[in-house]
Amino acid sequence: MEGSRGRMAFIPHILLLLFLLLITTSTTTSSTLRRPLKPCKTLILYFHDIIYNGLNAANATAAIVASPAWANRTILAGQNHFGDVVVFDDPITLDNNLHSPPVGRAQGMYLYDKKEIYNAWLGFSFVLNSTDYKGTISFIGTDPTLNKTRDVSVVGGTGDFFMTRGVATLMTDAFEGDVYFRLRVDVKLYECY
Amino acid sequence: MEGSRGRMAFIPHILLLLFLLLITTSTTTSSTLRRPLKPCKTLILYFHDIIYNGLNAANATAAIVASPAWANRTILAGQNHFGDVVVFDDPITLDNNLHSPPVGRAQGMYLYDKKEIYNAWLGFSFVLNSTDYKGTISFIGTDPTLNKTRDVSVVGGTGDFFMTRGVATLMTDAFEGDVYFRLRVDVKLYECY
Amino acid sequence: MEGSRGRMAFIPHILLLLFLLLITTSTTTSSTLRRPLKPCKTLILYFHDIIYNGLNAANATAAIVASPAWANRTILAGQNHFGDVVVFDDPITLDNNLHSPPVGRAQGMYLYDKKEIYNAWLGFSFVLNSTDYKGTISFIGTDPTLNKTRDVSVVGGTGDFFMTRGVATLMTDAFEGDVYFRLRVDVKLYECY
Repeated sequence: MEGSRGRMAFIPHILLLLFLLLITTSTTTSSTLRRPLKPCKTLILYFHDIIYNGLNAANATAAIVASPAWANRTILAGQNHFGDVVVFDDPITLDNNLHSPPVGRAQGMYLYDKKEIYNAWLGFSFVLNSTDYKGTISFIGTDPTLNKTRDVSVVGGTGDFFMTRGVATLMTDAFEGDVYFRLRVDVKLYECY
Repeated sequence: MEGSRGRMAFIPHILLLLFLLLITTSTTTSSTLRRPLKPCKTLILYFHDIIYNGLNAANATAAIVASPAWANRTILAGQNHFGDVVVFDDPITLDNNLHSPPVGRAQGMYLYDKKEIYNAWLGFSFVLNSTDYKGTISFIGTDPTLNKTRDVSVVGGTGDFFMTRGVATLMTDAFEGDVYFRLRVDVKLYECY
Repeated sequence: MEGSRGRMAFIPHILLLLFLLLITTSTTTSSTLRRPLKPCKTLILYFHDIIYNGLNAANATAAIVASPAWANRTILAGQNHFGDVVVFDDPITLDNNLHSPPVGRAQGMYLYDKKEIYNAWLGFSFVLNSTDYKGTISFIGTDPTLNKTRDVSVVGGTGDFFMTRGVATLMTDAFEGDVYFRLRVDVKLYECY
């Protein structure tokens, strides 16, 4: 008799557990997920873009490769560079010094896509190769460059960043005419494997 | 004695629960996931692309910025525009009227990549800025433009669309020569945070 | 008395289970995930890129559409093609024979982004259309083409590859001057629906 009471007391627990299990399972398969409170990995990195302007072939890390019919590929186009496509291979550093030892390269392209203000669309990857990290992180998104901060999406990764996802906050850390800019990138990864 | 029976009756339950837990855990870490039955968020939006053709500089929202050696950047290339790259900053509206108040901009690029038919590869983002939504959604994929519907991938997002993923169905809602087209985009998000 | 012992013996189990449940739940919502041991789907495919060089208009599946100011769109640029953007629509085959029946097309673009070595950034999709698979897989990433193998990210998919993610390993299977190359792609998908 006492034993059966033990079992009865057990039943609500079982129900509670099954309920919790159902919640857990449905969290896994349904589409509305709890927003992660904090990243599983954070990186603060800087990259340095030196745009070819006809005079700096030796130092340039980027070049205009496409432009609209009314512009050319040596000078950034009028109307806030609308239509210019730039390919780059920029050094990544841990601080804001162009001459610090690079920990990798930022590679890909950006294109200016708005007439009224400086606005870019970015598709690029960080290729990290240091004692800390080896692997790539790929980014996609829009960059309204005059905003103090702007977020782009981290859509994938390889190596130490296998399958990662997250958000990166871009900040213009320096801007010198149409020749040099430096971006600070706060990479916040919310899926790490 | 009764108590030990209570405990024994409990053991199969424990095993069942552990088994269920293992299933749940493996659902979490294994790779084959249950296909979500319905999106966690759906948006139906239209965007309007007015391509620069040498005559419409004031209204154009898009421009050819690259083309193959045999073509130029004012007129879309022969062979179904193969090789043309177009940069755009198009208004997004809630209905099919170009003059409706925009809720955001579609920004990025498309490139025509097939000689035999009109076929595009897309990389772009929606930048939504309305009372309903603030944030970006990024898209990647192929667009066989003559198909009634075609799916591209939603690969990331920021703001209200933090880390989102899903599929977007494109439909050509209007097409006027080589100057204007309007796409209806049914965005179906299956991961929302 | 025996019954209450039964219940007491039960309590640690409940705690253990709740603890396990918490772990499971937090695995679901937290960001550090167990690395999947093996892919849920694997594909080994080849694609064939025939670059337009001014003489092969009929056969070419790819064309230079953008280049830096110092180069043109008929001949790949000096400095390891830095700045060249190539648009392609390449046949995909199950083996390394260009003339095997294609199972789909690889469509998108690559851009050479490094002066010192051949290095590309890729944005493209596989459009598969065979009895085995119908759907698209989209890729983003860097391709240091001289490495024996290099990984890019699978960032999305549609159709049979709805919402997929993973990693693809690229290997140069053949390379003939600046006119033809063949890539072997080992697609490893770790999220399948």
